Amino acid sequence: MVILDHKQIEELIDLDVAGAAIEAAYIAASNGEVTLPPVGHITFPDVAGDCHIKYGHVKGDPSFVIKIATGFPHNAQSGLPTGNGMSLVMSAQTGVVQAVLHDEMVMTDIRTGLGGAIATKCLARSDSKRVLIVGTGPQAMRQIESHIALIGDRLSFEVWGRSAAKAQSVVCALQPKCKITVADDLAAATRKADIVVTATGSTAPLIKDAWVGEGTHITAVGADAPGKQELETRLISRADVLVADSIDQCLDHGEMSHAFGQELISRQNVVEIGTTLSGATLGRTNATQLTIADLTGIAAQDIAIAHVVLKANRND
Amino acid sequence: MVILDHKQIEELIDLDVAGAAIEAAYIAASNGEVTLPPVGHITFPDVAGDCHIKYGHVKGDPSFVIKIATGFPHNAQSGLPTGNGMSLVMSAQTGVVQAVLHDEMVMTDIRTGLGGAIATKCLARSDSKRVLIVGTGPQAMRQIESHIALIGDRLSFEVWGRSAAKAQSVVCALQPKCKITVADDLAAATRKADIVVTATGSTAPLIKDAWVGEGTHITAVGADAPGKQELETRLISRADVLVADSIDQCLDHGEMSHAFGQELISRQNVVEIGTTLSGATLGRTNATQLTIADLTGIAAQDIAIAHVVLKANRND
Repeated sequence: MVILDHKQIEELIDLDVAGAAIEAAYIAASNGEVTLPPVGHITFPDVAGDCHIKYGHVKGDPSFVIKIATGFPHNAQSGLPTGNGMSLVMSAQTGVVQAVLHDEMVMTDIRTGLGGAIATKCLARSDSKRVLIVGTGPQAMRQIESHIALIGDRLSFEVWGRSAAKAQSVVCALQPKCKITVADDLAAATRKADIVVTATGSTAPLIKDAWVGEGTHITAVGADAPGKQELETRLISRADVLVADSIDQCLDHGEMSHAFGQELISRQNVVEIGTTLSGATLGRTNATQLTIADLTGIAAQDIAIAHVVLKANRND
Repeated sequence: MVILDHKQIEELIDLDVAGAAIEAAYIAASNGEVTLPPVGHITFPDVAGDCHIKYGHVKGDPSFVIKIATGFPHNAQSGLPTGNGMSLVMSAQTGVVQAVLHDEMVMTDIRTGLGGAIATKCLARSDSKRVLIVGTGPQAMRQIESHIALIGDRLSFEVWGRSAAKAQSVVCALQPKCKITVADDLAAATRKADIVVTATGSTAPLIKDAWVGEGTHITAVGADAPGKQELETRLISRADVLVADSIDQCLDHGEMSHAFGQELISRQNVVEIGTTLSGATLGRTNATQLTIADLTGIAAQDIAIAHVVLKANRND
């Protein structure tokens, strides 16, 4: 039984390799090739904590994956991380436990970052250069790193946060790797961006419809639970191309759920990233379209990144 | 993070200590003090394998437990165990993973054995001496060991199996610990037993109603899934006291499910082991009653035994 901690796991992940694996996982999920039972959930009301258990199997894979993720917001008061967890890799042929990947959320953070970059690469104009990153947390950093890895040097970044100091610290951390500055004004920064990536825990819209120009692409990863929202509702209904990682999840509790709940969009307006990547559905078809990707996170990504880690650990 | 393998776990478990913990867990479960979300389940049809995820939290406990158990019957062909798995112990205050108990089913086997002995101790006549064990697998051994530990030296055992050779090997293995012989004839052995413990994977009744005398107690642990049955259906409907570890589970897929499905018993005929142990419901009230305990296994037992292991490992 392989046991790896978060540092070992982070060192084993090559973003290009993992990006390709997650792209394949999106396609497999949209093709119905992933067995995904309902997500398990237990809550701890006394401390507002909870634990999710996501598990699944890609048809034909020798292993299946069980991912356990906890969220305990009160941890912040004592300086502990609010998110935690691990993935177990088990043989789909014998049930034997093959690996305990005690990643403490590292794999989730990385696969979420890569999902964002995959969506941007798939949907943004090929001449896009200016990326606005909204948010200053760990996921904002992962988005920048993934966009650099999968899309490349042509991109420059502006970072906006409620706290200018936090935005500055993201800039300082990533300055060696890319062209990056702090955005002082969210409206102005949105107006000049080719690509907007939102990665906040916001529960009220941050990006207004009026700020977003023709041809922009938006990747929204912050809204992963009921009540969260980063984009003005009418921006969703205005989009020419709406892409979800999982149509069911995004309409239920993603960025799109607000417009869907108000009947401003219907299920027929949304395509899945997996079918868009495979070419089965259309993504962007011209330079003036507004494209929006809503990513809530799917177990197929967790399965893919666990396999990437194990494969790298076997050195094959 | 504590990581223990099945040998370390087995050495840490004192049957008396674990028995007391599981008794308390039964009571807590019946009192509604255990949060038990629906069991997770994923299947692997190509190899007839499956994986169950049972998890829960006893109110007030500092930890919660996630138990993962796999069943891959084809493993037998290659000499591998058909059951496998592990339990994770996580903080209910911070979500941090406290322990990976890679027990490979040892904790499940032990808690099932102890559950049987707890039920027998609670329901059998206090002067019972002769125990018939039906089955020769690992669980039959666990039942004998648990009955010795929790009830004591007054018991003598007869072991019956379809294979007399396997029954003989159980007898040889346990002869140093107790009075034990092979039962050649199931009908005759049942007629003279005070206590019958069934621990087989049978899908057709083994114990006939006509063989069972007044005052007998039966603990049936084999029927833990739809289609399994060890006792003739009319034996269930004849019982004076019917006790379930979980009324819902036993009526759905336990030994009682057949009689319940044929409307020979109703939900009102069944009490729970937890309420019987606490005295909230009646168990045996005289020496002539036929008492039957149907045990399908509940997550509260898994939680209890994981805590016993961790506590012993901390040496407190």
